[in-house]
Amino acid sequence: MELSGIFTCHATSGRARAGTLQLPHGQVPTPIFMPVGTRASVKTLDARDVEELGTRILLGNSYHLYLRPGLDILREAGGLHPFMRWPGPILTDSGGFQVFSLGDLRKLKEEGAEFRSHLDGSRHLFTPESVVDIQRALGSDIMMQLDECPPGQCDEAYALQSLELSARWARRAREAWLGGTPLYGHAQALFPIVQGGTHLALRERSMELLLRDPWPGVAIGGLSVGESKADMRRVTDHCGRLLPTDLPRYLMGVGTPEDILESIAMGVDMFDCVLPTRNARKGTLFTSEGRYNARGARHARSFNQPLDPECDCLTCRTYDRAHLRHLYHVEEFSAMRLGTIHNLRYFLRLVFGARQAILEDRYAEYMEKCLAPYGAASANEAQAPAL
Amino acid sequence: MELSGIFTCHATSGRARAGTLQLPHGQVPTPIFMPVGTRASVKTLDARDVEELGTRILLGNSYHLYLRPGLDILREAGGLHPFMRWPGPILTDSGGFQVFSLGDLRKLKEEGAEFRSHLDGSRHLFTPESVVDIQRALGSDIMMQLDECPPGQCDEAYALQSLELSARWARRAREAWLGGTPLYGHAQALFPIVQGGTHLALRERSMELLLRDPWPGVAIGGLSVGESKADMRRVTDHCGRLLPTDLPRYLMGVGTPEDILESIAMGVDMFDCVLPTRNARKGTLFTSEGRYNARGARHARSFNQPLDPECDCLTCRTYDRAHLRHLYHVEEFSAMRLGTIHNLRYFLRLVFGARQAILEDRYAEYMEKCLAPYGAASANEAQAPAL
Repeated sequence: MELSGIFTCHATSGRARAGTLQLPHGQVPTPIFMPVGTRASVKTLDARDVEELGTRILLGNSYHLYLRPGLDILREAGGLHPFMRWPGPILTDSGGFQVFSLGDLRKLKEEGAEFRSHLDGSRHLFTPESVVDIQRALGSDIMMQLDECPPGQCDEAYALQSLELSARWARRAREAWLGGTPLYGHAQALFPIVQGGTHLALRERSMELLLRDPWPGVAIGGLSVGESKADMRRVTDHCGRLLPTDLPRYLMGVGTPEDILESIAMGVDMFDCVLPTRNARKGTLFTSEGRYNARGARHARSFNQPLDPECDCLTCRTYDRAHLRHLYHVEEFSAMRLGTIHNLRYFLRLVFGARQAILEDRYAEYMEKCLAPYGAASANEAQAPAL
Repeated sequence: MELSGIFTCHATSGRARAGTLQLPHGQVPTPIFMPVGTRASVKTLDARDVEELGTRILLGNSYHLYLRPGLDILREAGGLHPFMRWPGPILTDSGGFQVFSLGDLRKLKEEGAEFRSHLDGSRHLFTPESVVDIQRALGSDIMMQLDECPPGQCDEAYALQSLELSARWARRAREAWLGGTPLYGHAQALFPIVQGGTHLALRERSMELLLRDPWPGVAIGGLSVGESKADMRRVTDHCGRLLPTDLPRYLMGVGTPEDILESIAMGVDMFDCVLPTRNARKGTLFTSEGRYNARGARHARSFNQPLDPECDCLTCRTYDRAHLRHLYHVEEFSAMRLGTIHNLRYFLRLVFGARQAILEDRYAEYMEKCLAPYGAASANEAQAPAL
């Protein structure tokens, strides 16, 4: 049971696209940001929080879920949706990124990637086929192929070898996908991942290899892994020009508000990143007025001033900057949740606004307005994702 | 501006009392449990959570709030109510308990208690008068006198000397209360604290000294500080028999569900304890079926079973035992909040049910039914409060 023809493009503004993904658990307006729900939970939030944010699609991490709670439990639960009480669409990654982040704990073979668990050192093998099976147990709406994610600065020879391996793995994953049966009665999509590092010719080669087969969507991988912002932009721009227009394009692990808005301008439709959630836990918040250090002593007396006057999230509706600063200052756990709620709502409002602007063909203007308060400071923002 | 005549007793069942406290920020049905909002926040919760639990009155800690965010900020905010976005009644402690927990960091004098901050070692002096001023800055509905809280097993001579000092401090606090003016336009009550350790004659002496003056309510202090359960029961029972019936009685820092229900049977009206919140963060939950270890591997497959089938909290409405176990197992922060929500709701439902049972004169039966699943295991529960 395959799933194809899931994407409809309604309008463009420049190369930015406004569309809809039709998935088994619901429709997703694009461009969209997917909050990261690593371990069957968006860190610090509950299911109601996630829903109230206006979340349209969540991301789950196969590697973490495979280890805990494990596939037996997830199968018995009926998959990730009932287990985590999230009724909407879910995209799961292949676990490849986490496995390749393990460094010495993993070994690459033609068959797949062998690794030791970061939890207990136990040995495991991820193959293109087993990773489809894992994502069948999770029951996600969109599955990702197992790919090798090489370092951002790897040389051309390595990048070529790697993208060819990933393309062979994509074909094997596709066979497993088309040859198998979903577990919970709903179809699942599978996306291949374009690799090739920062070399445009290699990116073209990767697209050429992958797109010999038809797919319901396609991802751009291997970015936001240590390369420069300029390289990331260059590669995204190039892929955005060459990828087929009828497929939804997912830029993996990206990024800052600037990254997201600029990538939308290059024709990207889907995003995920730990930036809003991880930064929230540390006290760095994103607002319509720019970056905000929630711990800053200068906010200690900002009574009756919401964190972001343009935001409608629980945090902005409930507390003022003075109280939020106090919570971060004394290190209450609740600060991390309140910050997470706000940051995710900011990212969601950002992409919802982008969609509306595209529909009204004023995307460039929208992007400029949103990014004005962010300035150049963010160009070097650290966003290396960790395990 | 004083506040008196705040308590109305509607009914009794045995010695258990059902009443109402009339406070500036609202009515409080008694018996009542007060969730602890140490640092202008119930740990892990937001203001909506607190309200949805059915909280009727919160407890705030003067010592912690005095240090952070500090009185200047709290005065500018207009007190604790607007600062923490809690519109209902608040009781604040005097900070005495925390100061006496500081051990070597504090020095007792007739004038007051000198101490060094546990945060930065800075020197401070709490006097009966300054502690009233602190609580005026907090704007609580009920303030507590500064008292000395001696160790649970101290000898009779020390206990006598200590309760006499606390009684002198009560009188000084009362003068400061009656001679001063609230800061935010609403009256505040002040409760004295009965001390005397585990010696019944000394408890009588303490009550005799304190109750020469009229007060709006009275607290029983110096329990749940290391003495045996039997001693705690004996002292509570004795005080419950001797305290004037027209005053609300607050048993400080107590306790387990058993402690609370048994103390209600002895005529106590108000309780606070960190037990439900602290235990929730560690994974020990209270349910209508008894204590529950949320981390237990045996719950890993308890799909579609709510934590407590009789509970209506967000946690029980949303998740099953399997998911909750997973969240605790992988140590998601959200587990701490979900557990806190449930435990506090359990404690509140416990006292709300007690009130109803008293009104229907079937309190003994209610207590027996609630405690049946708890058995004897809890008699030795550690509940020593920490700083």
